[in-house]
Amino acid sequence: MSEPVFPEHVVLQVSLGERSYPIHIGAGLLGSGIVRRHVQSRQVAVVSNEIVAPLHGNRLLGELGGLDVRQIILRDGEQEKNLENFNAILTRMLESGFSRNCTLIALGGGVVGDLCGFAAACYMRGVRFIQVPTTLLAQVDSSVGGKTAVNHPLGKNMIGAFHQPVAVVADTGLLETLPEREYLAGLAEVIKYGLIRDAVFLDWLEQNIGPLRRRAPDALAHAVHRSCQNKAEVVAADERESGQRALLNLGHTFGHAIETAQEYRGLLHGEAVAVGMVMAAGFSEQTGLMPPGSAARVRSLLERTGLPVEPPPGLSAEEFLAIMARDKKAVDGKMRLILMNKPGEAFVCDAVPVAALREYLGECLAGAAVRRTN
Amino acid sequence: MSEPVFPEHVVLQVSLGERSYPIHIGAGLLGSGIVRRHVQSRQVAVVSNEIVAPLHGNRLLGELGGLDVRQIILRDGEQEKNLENFNAILTRMLESGFSRNCTLIALGGGVVGDLCGFAAACYMRGVRFIQVPTTLLAQVDSSVGGKTAVNHPLGKNMIGAFHQPVAVVADTGLLETLPEREYLAGLAEVIKYGLIRDAVFLDWLEQNIGPLRRRAPDALAHAVHRSCQNKAEVVAADERESGQRALLNLGHTFGHAIETAQEYRGLLHGEAVAVGMVMAAGFSEQTGLMPPGSAARVRSLLERTGLPVEPPPGLSAEEFLAIMARDKKAVDGKMRLILMNKPGEAFVCDAVPVAALREYLGECLAGAAVRRTN
Repeated sequence: MSEPVFPEHVVLQVSLGERSYPIHIGAGLLGSGIVRRHVQSRQVAVVSNEIVAPLHGNRLLGELGGLDVRQIILRDGEQEKNLENFNAILTRMLESGFSRNCTLIALGGGVVGDLCGFAAACYMRGVRFIQVPTTLLAQVDSSVGGKTAVNHPLGKNMIGAFHQPVAVVADTGLLETLPEREYLAGLAEVIKYGLIRDAVFLDWLEQNIGPLRRRAPDALAHAVHRSCQNKAEVVAADERESGQRALLNLGHTFGHAIETAQEYRGLLHGEAVAVGMVMAAGFSEQTGLMPPGSAARVRSLLERTGLPVEPPPGLSAEEFLAIMARDKKAVDGKMRLILMNKPGEAFVCDAVPVAALREYLGECLAGAAVRRTN
Repeated sequence: MSEPVFPEHVVLQVSLGERSYPIHIGAGLLGSGIVRRHVQSRQVAVVSNEIVAPLHGNRLLGELGGLDVRQIILRDGEQEKNLENFNAILTRMLESGFSRNCTLIALGGGVVGDLCGFAAACYMRGVRFIQVPTTLLAQVDSSVGGKTAVNHPLGKNMIGAFHQPVAVVADTGLLETLPEREYLAGLAEVIKYGLIRDAVFLDWLEQNIGPLRRRAPDALAHAVHRSCQNKAEVVAADERESGQRALLNLGHTFGHAIETAQEYRGLLHGEAVAVGMVMAAGFSEQTGLMPPGSAARVRSLLERTGLPVEPPPGLSAEEFLAIMARDKKAVDGKMRLILMNKPGEAFVCDAVPVAALREYLGECLAGAAVRRTN
């Protein structure tokens, strides 16, 4: 048998010693046999959802011929990322007699990847799993780095584990069928890498946001590649988020507060992060960390991307603060936030002055209310 | 303030790089301040059960004065080691606003330690926890090594994680109040270390089983110390059970089958392991691995300890085999068992001949039935 020929693609390495793994990026990867190459067991469970499975499931199953494959198809939506579905996946695997040598494959977006990854982390104390992200957000962010979790009614991602996949296969061709709103939400996380640590990429994004919005293949390939490169570097330097990995949370504490207040039924995660990054930029500028005009630059790029940049109505500054303080990024009562020295350079602020934050939130929400009525 | 003076005790180190931690062993350790020394946060949750908390809870709480302590008291019993209680612990911590900087303390036996450890592994993707084992079994086995889990209706310890504690504090004085049956069940795991890798300790056990059964303090201290030393060495060499750590499962695949068949309402874990070790020894001798008479020596020591050595009635060889094959130690359909070359030296057998095992099980169960009717 001759060696299989895989489509042209780039391979990045996430360097984590014995837990290192490749990220394959390129159009047309799904169905080419690359996933199969990372499966080392006969027993395979594919976790997906009712939207993704009909679109891409057969191409994946085509690679897995001859293996003992079980499909676990979930409903769509963030509310499915819960302990009940975690238990349902494990029960199905136990009923199927799967050993600790089995492989789990996550075919879907962040919800499927996080849930499937957490199941893989806990099934018999940990089995192999492969990420096949099908959304832009999952390809550039959630599928890389080993953060797995489910939500709890009292907070997002509160129950979880660090469990690295054995491979990530990001087929950028799959993004063609992504609904517009979801695609744009993914761009928020792409822009995040520019904002936190890659000024060159940020310039490129400002110049190429048009083609990127239109999903021009070259622009898209570059954006996914550069994002994964940034993510892989950060994760390799700080797997368990004891230091710089926290930078990846830029906009997330504000964003999570919005998502929690809306009970995950309002803005998409990426949209909430976009608003959160505008707020983090605004607060950074107001406290004198960033030069005047910097926050406007951040806001402008996200606006041109077609993302929301204003917090939603109906949330007071005090409510905002209370939810933020409960976020897991709060340590022993002190507020931790990712702030910016300039667009392209973020840092972890471990003792945010709560009075200043309260004042900023009040002004920000009042400003948004005024702009809504005009 | 002067340095606290701690009771005389030995400290063993589990060497796992940045995850290394001490095991403190001695009488009177609880309440001395040693646990407190390993708490680095204000927020502390103590997980215990309705039997242990009234006996020893106050001594622990006495050490934790001035901290923000929540007590989570579970009912007693293996059936409490489930996903519902896991969720209940996490919910309580979230309701209390605990950050990822908090500390969990397990005060109890293996059930409390495994469950609390799994909660610590998953709360916000992992927080610090301290093991304060109050049973012999927990002191010599389950509290050391970072295996955490809950049970699933389809199998024991099927959902779990590797998560090392930051310290183990084994107060051998607590064992004085342990019910006789539970104490003896713990001795099964002590004897296990002799059988798998410590022939000198095995000789000592055969000579000192009388004092040890009577809980003579010196004999008890030596037994716990030597057991933890063996456990620490095995765990340091193979944290994630890719090799020799599997030796610790001697008797466990047979034992788990008994526990599963009895729905965890019959023999205690240590008792089932005692029967399982007799069976592993019997099978090892029957297949010619151990010289004749070796299995009788194993059986005799466990009998003198006051432990059961016969499988319970009502379980056929086929049922036994079916449950064993579903055990997580079965890999891709092949049966894995821990067998013995001699008492004091066990090894991992990765491809057990199922026909020979079926034959042995038939004879063993028939023999037990005959002995029951005589």
